Amino acid sequence: MSQFENVTAVKAANIYYDGKVTSRTVLFPDGSQKTLGIMMPGDYEFGTEAAEIMEMLAGDVEVLLPGETEWKAIPVGETFEVPANSKFGIKVKTVADYCCSYL
Amino acid sequence: MSQFENVTAVKAANIYYDGKVTSRTVLFPDGSQKTLGIMMPGDYEFGTEAAEIMEMLAGDVEVLLPGETEWKAIPVGETFEVPANSKFGIKVKTVADYCCSYL
Repeated sequence: MSQFENVTAVKAANIYYDGKVTSRTVLFPDGSQKTLGIMMPGDYEFGTEAAEIMEMLAGDVEVLLPGETEWKAIPVGETFEVPANSKFGIKVKTVADYCCSYL
Repeated sequence: MSQFENVTAVKAANIYYDGKVTSRTVLFPDGSQKTLGIMMPGDYEFGTEAAEIMEMLAGDVEVLLPGETEWKAIPVGETFEVPANSKFGIKVKTVADYCCSYL
C-alpha cells in the first residue's frame, strides 16, 4: 500500500548519524508501529531491540545480516528481516528511502 | 502538539537536492496536508505554490523571505510564513527538522 490510513504521525524526527539517517514514527491503531526513514550515502550499523522487517522504497543498498559473512544487495521493493537484539550493517550507495516494521 | 492523530501518512518520501532535503506528507481528515521534513546542512531555495507556514523543530537556520534583503535566524519552536507562488532561501547550519503546513 502506498499510504497508511487512520494512523498517528509523531511530529519530531528520529535523528541518527548526524542526520545522515533520519526517520518518522507512525503509530497504528493496533498498537504496532513503523518508521519511515531516509539514509544518505554512507556505511552504518544498527542494533535492534524488536525484530524488524525493512522494506526498501528507493535507493541502492547492501546489507550484512547477523550470522552472515557476505553483503547482500536489497533491490527496491524487496525486504530484509533482522532478528531481535541483534545488529546489522548497511552500505548505502544512493539515497535510500525505507519503511521499517517492528515485529 | 507532539503528534498528529487520525491522519494518513504517505509512505514514499519527497526527495529534493539529492536527498539533502526530504519530507513525508501527512494528510488530515479535513483535506489539509502537512509535510514533516529534514534538511541537511546547505543552502537551498524553494518555490511555493500554496502559502506555507514552516515550523522549526530542530536545527539552526536562516531564511531570506520574499521581498526581504536580510537573512533572519529562525529559532527552534518558531515559525515563518511564505506567501503563495513565491520563493525563499534557507541556509541550514545544523541538521534541521521541520513541519510545513500548507494554507
